[in-house]
Amino acid sequence: MTTIGFIGLGIMGSPMSGHLVAAGHAVRGFDLNADSVAKLVAAGGTAAGGVADAVAGADVVITMLPDHPQVEDVVLGDGGVLELAAPGTLLVDMSTIRPETSVAVAEAAASKGIRVLDAPVSGGEAGARQASLSIMVGGEEADFAAARPLLDVVGKTVVHVGPHGAGQVVKAANQLMVGGIYALVAEAIVLLEASGVDAKAGLDVLAGGLAANRILDLKRETMIAREFAPGFRIDLHHKDMGIALAAARQADVALPVTGLIAQLIAAGRARGYGSLDHSALLKVIENLSGRA
Amino acid sequence: MTTIGFIGLGIMGSPMSGHLVAAGHAVRGFDLNADSVAKLVAAGGTAAGGVADAVAGADVVITMLPDHPQVEDVVLGDGGVLELAAPGTLLVDMSTIRPETSVAVAEAAASKGIRVLDAPVSGGEAGARQASLSIMVGGEEADFAAARPLLDVVGKTVVHVGPHGAGQVVKAANQLMVGGIYALVAEAIVLLEASGVDAKAGLDVLAGGLAANRILDLKRETMIAREFAPGFRIDLHHKDMGIALAAARQADVALPVTGLIAQLIAAGRARGYGSLDHSALLKVIENLSGRA
Amino acid sequence: MTTIGFIGLGIMGSPMSGHLVAAGHAVRGFDLNADSVAKLVAAGGTAAGGVADAVAGADVVITMLPDHPQVEDVVLGDGGVLELAAPGTLLVDMSTIRPETSVAVAEAAASKGIRVLDAPVSGGEAGARQASLSIMVGGEEADFAAARPLLDVVGKTVVHVGPHGAGQVVKAANQLMVGGIYALVAEAIVLLEASGVDAKAGLDVLAGGLAANRILDLKRETMIAREFAPGFRIDLHHKDMGIALAAARQADVALPVTGLIAQLIAAGRARGYGSLDHSALLKVIENLSGRA
Amino acid sequence: MTTIGFIGLGIMGSPMSGHLVAAGHAVRGFDLNADSVAKLVAAGGTAAGGVADAVAGADVVITMLPDHPQVEDVVLGDGGVLELAAPGTLLVDMSTIRPETSVAVAEAAASKGIRVLDAPVSGGEAGARQASLSIMVGGEEADFAAARPLLDVVGKTVVHVGPHGAGQVVKAANQLMVGGIYALVAEAIVLLEASGVDAKAGLDVLAGGLAANRILDLKRETMIAREFAPGFRIDLHHKDMGIALAAARQADVALPVTGLIAQLIAAGRARGYGSLDHSALLKVIENLSGRA
Repeated sequence: MTTIGFIGLGIMGSPMSGHLVAAGHAVRGFDLNADSVAKLVAAGGTAAGGVADAVAGADVVITMLPDHPQVEDVVLGDGGVLELAAPGTLLVDMSTIRPETSVAVAEAAASKGIRVLDAPVSGGEAGARQASLSIMVGGEEADFAAARPLLDVVGKTVVHVGPHGAGQVVKAANQLMVGGIYALVAEAIVLLEASGVDAKAGLDVLAGGLAANRILDLKRETMIAREFAPGFRIDLHHKDMGIALAAARQADVALPVTGLIAQLIAAGRARGYGSLDHSALLKVIENLSGRA
Repeated sequence: MTTIGFIGLGIMGSPMSGHLVAAGHAVRGFDLNADSVAKLVAAGGTAAGGVADAVAGADVVITMLPDHPQVEDVVLGDGGVLELAAPGTLLVDMSTIRPETSVAVAEAAASKGIRVLDAPVSGGEAGARQASLSIMVGGEEADFAAARPLLDVVGKTVVHVGPHGAGQVVKAANQLMVGGIYALVAEAIVLLEASGVDAKAGLDVLAGGLAANRILDLKRETMIAREFAPGFRIDLHHKDMGIALAAARQADVALPVTGLIAQLIAAGRARGYGSLDHSALLKVIENLSGRA
Repeated sequence: MTTIGFIGLGIMGSPMSGHLVAAGHAVRGFDLNADSVAKLVAAGGTAAGGVADAVAGADVVITMLPDHPQVEDVVLGDGGVLELAAPGTLLVDMSTIRPETSVAVAEAAASKGIRVLDAPVSGGEAGARQASLSIMVGGEEADFAAARPLLDVVGKTVVHVGPHGAGQVVKAANQLMVGGIYALVAEAIVLLEASGVDAKAGLDVLAGGLAANRILDLKRETMIAREFAPGFRIDLHHKDMGIALAAARQADVALPVTGLIAQLIAAGRARGYGSLDHSALLKVIENLSGRA
Repeated sequence: MTTIGFIGLGIMGSPMSGHLVAAGHAVRGFDLNADSVAKLVAAGGTAAGGVADAVAGADVVITMLPDHPQVEDVVLGDGGVLELAAPGTLLVDMSTIRPETSVAVAEAAASKGIRVLDAPVSGGEAGARQASLSIMVGGEEADFAAARPLLDVVGKTVVHVGPHGAGQVVKAANQLMVGGIYALVAEAIVLLEASGVDAKAGLDVLAGGLAANRILDLKRETMIAREFAPGFRIDLHHKDMGIALAAARQADVALPVTGLIAQLIAAGRARGYGSLDHSALLKVIENLSGRA
C-alpha cells in the first residue's frame, strides 16, 4: 500500500484516483471542486483540504491538472508541492503540458531532493474510466520503476520513453498525428461527397489499404453521419496543438503540416465547435468549401 | 474464357496480364517495349503488334497506362481504342488518371456503343505480383458485374464506388491520405529525435493508440533507419497528388492540407528523391530543419 | 501600319483591339460573340468570319483567349493559326496560360516558320481600357523588337523577360504574389478586428512601414468596408493559381505558401464568391473563424 | 524636461535613450550590461544601479526588453516597476511581447495607480538610430497624449491604435505580413530562376504592378544576390511569429497562412540562419527544392 496525494480530481483524475483506491492504496485527494473530493471520499479515499494536506506524509504525489499555469502554481508556487513535500517524495505529473515546463519542474524538484516523472496520458475519459490509458513517461529509469505499479493500475500501455519532458514530447507527437489524420479524413470525405461518390464505400476501400488508420476505423461512420458528440473535445485538442508547436519551438524544428493543422483546429474552436468531438474538424473543412 | 486486349505491360500491367493468362483467359498484349510483350508471350499470352491488333476481337480491353496523356492518345486518339473496338466491347481503364479524363472517355465511348469502367488500383508492384490489389471501380453497375470476374483475378478488394470517374476520385482520396500520413509520421519522428526522445519507443506508443495507422505499422522501423528503397516511388506519388488536386478543382472544393502535402512531395522530387520510396518524405521534413 | 489579325475580343481583347485601330493599324477581328465583332467594326476595324479570315494576309496575329484549351484549339488545332498563317507571320499570344503550352506552341510554330511570343498582361479590364497594361514577354529578342510598337499601344510597362514561356512564368509569379498578399492582408484584418483594434488605424501604420504594398494602398478601405465589386474576379485568380502550380511543377520546384493560397482561393470560388473581386479572399479567412 | 527611467539599453534602447537625452530630458538608464549604461552616461544620461534606482523620481518609465518573461520579471516581479514606481507614474513598455501580457501589465498597474501604454516599434536598429521608428500604441487616449512628445523624439509614425494590448496586436499584424511577403518574394524568385527566367527582369515587372511592395523595392536585389547581412534577424522574426500566433489564439481566430509562415521562419532558424536577415527565408524556400 502506497500513500498517495492526488491533486486534480476532474474528468480524468476522478476515475483514476478511484482505481487507485480500489487497488488498495491510501489516496488523499484535493480539488477546488468540493463535489469531486466528496466523490473520492465516497469511493474510500480521504479528503485533503489543500495542497499541504494532500502532500503531508505522501510517498507519491500525483498531479492531474488542466495546463502549465496550474502546474506552475500548484507545484512550483508558494505553498506548492515542491515547497511542502518531504525530500524523497516521488511526484508524478500526469497533466498534459509543454515539455519545457516538465523539465523546469524536474530541475526545481532536484534541488529539493524530490523525484519527478512527467506521465501524460492518452485515451480520454473512456480510457480513464476503463483504466486502459496509454501513459508516456519521462524521467529517471529508477523512478519509472518505482511508479510503474501505480501507473499499471490506471493504464494499459505504460512506456518509459526518455528523460524528463520526453513523456510530454511523445504526447505532443500523438496529438499532432491524431489532429492531422482527422484533417485528412475530413478532406477525403469532402472530396468524395462533392464528386458524387458514395463516401461510405470509398472510405471502406481506403480502410483496407495503406491509408488504413484507427480514426477511419472508429469514426468514419459517425463523421459521415455528422455525429460529433465527444469523445475528446476540440477545445482540448486546440490546447494540445499549442503544446505541440511549443515543443517544436523548444526542439528547434519546423513542422509545416502541424502548423497548418493547428490553425484548422483553432478554426473549429473559433467557429463554435469547441465542445464537439475533434472529428468535427470535418465541419471546418466542409465549411471552407461552403458545404455546410 | 474471355478474350482480353491488354494495353500497357509495365511494372503493374505485366504481372496483372500474367495472372489473367494463368486464370485461363486469352490475353493479347501490346506495349511499346518489346521485352514486355515477349514476357507475356512466354507466360502463354499472345503478342499484339499495336492497339488495332490488341483490340481486334476482344471482349474486354484493359488499359494500364502512366497518365492521362497516354490514355487520351491510346483511347481517344486517331487509331485508338474507341475508333477500333467493336460496339459492345467493355473497356476497363486501370490507369490512375484525373477523374475528368475518365468521365470524358466514358462520354466519348458511349457515342460509339462502347462500355467503360475506370478501375484504378492501389497496392503497388507487390500487390500486382501477389494479385492482392485494391481496385476502385467507377461506372455502370452492370458493367462492373461483367468485369468483376476478371478484376477478382488480380485484386483482393474490388469495390464499385460510383459513376464514371468515381474510381479515380477514391484513388485520389487514398493517395492524399497516404501522402498526408507519411508527412505526419515524418513530423513526429523529427520532433521526437530533436527532443532527445527515443523515436522507436515513442512511435510504439503512438501505434498503440488513436494515432495508429498502417504506415506506422509497416514503415516506422525503416523510416527511423532511413531505409528508403521503393516500394512506391515519390515520383509516382507526385503525379498522384497532381491528380488529387485536379480532382478537387473539378469537384469545386478546397483541400488545404492536401495542397500543402502536394508541395512537400514536390520538394522530395525536386531534391532528387524521386526514385526513393514515398516514406522518404521524412528526408524533406528533416532537411527543412537542417537535420539531414 | 500593320495588318493585324486579332482573335478573342472579350473584356480584355475588345479595348485592346480598339486601341490598335485608333493607332492606325488595320485590325481584322474574330470572336465567337458577334456583338464583340460588331463593336470592333464600329470602332473602325474589320470583321473576320473565322480564324482563316483573321489570319489571311496578317503580318501579326494576336490571340487573347481564356485558357490553354482555347489556345490549343485556335492555334494548334485543325484549321488553326499555325495551319493557316503564312510563314514569317508573328503570333503574339497574350492569353494567360501555362508556360508549357507556350513552349509547345513555340515549338510547333517553329516547324512552320512562324514566329511566336507569349505576352500575358496584368492590369485587368481597367488597364486594358486605359492602355496601361503591364506586358511580360517571352520569346526571341528580334521578335520582341518587332512586336514592341504594337505592345506599346496597349501597355505602359512592356518587358522582355526571357525565352518562350518566360512571360507566362512572370505572370504566374505575379499572380501568386498578389494572391498571397491578399491572404496576408485578410489575416491581418481578421486579427485586428477580433482583437478589438481599429483595423483602419492598424493598417495605416502597416502601410507606412516594411509591410507596405500596393494592395494595402488600393484596397484596405474597401476590404474593411466589405466592398467586393470586381476588379479582378476570384474565378480568374483561381484559374491563375492553377497555372502557377503547373509552372512550379514544370520547373520542378516546391512552393508551399503558393500551394496553400491556391486552396484558399479555391475556397472562395467554392463558397460562391467567384464573381467577386479577389479581395473577397477576406470572406474566406473570416468565415474560417466564424466571423462572417 | 521629463525625468525618464529607461530600462533596457540594448541595440534598440541605446540609441533611443540617447535621442531622449539629446532632446533635453533627464534619462536615468539601467541595463544588466555595464557598457550599455556607460554609453548612456557618456551621452549625457545618468547611470541607474537597478530597477529601483531607475524608477525613483521618474515621471515616465520606459522599458525596452527582449520578450515577455523579462517584462514579467522587471515590471511585475518582486522589486519590479509596479512595486517601486510612485502612483501616477506613466510606464511606456516599448518591448514587443504578447498582447495578453500587455493587458495583464495594464491590469496590475491600474491597481497601483500606475498608467501604462504598450508601444512596440518597427523599423529596426536603423530606425532606432535615425529616430524614424513606427510606434504602435495601445492604452488610454490621455496617456497617449502625455507620452506623445517623448515618442515623437524617437519615432516618425506614432499612432494610437486602441486599448491596452492594441499596440502589440498591430505589431503582430505587421510581422506576420512582413514574414509572409518575404516568403512570397522567395517563392517568386525560386520559380523564376528554376524556369530559366531572368529574376531581376521578372521582379522589376512585378514591382510595377499590383504585386508591388516595399520588400520588393528594398530587398529584391540583395535577395537575388544572396546577400543576407542583417537588418532584422531571423531569430527575432521567429520570436515575433510566436507572438503573432499567441495573439491569434488570444483573439480566437485561425490564421492558416501565418501558421505556415511561422514554420518556414522556424526552419530558417533551425537550419542555422538565425543571425541572417529575415530575407534569408529565400534560403529555406530554395533548399526545399534542393536549389542551394
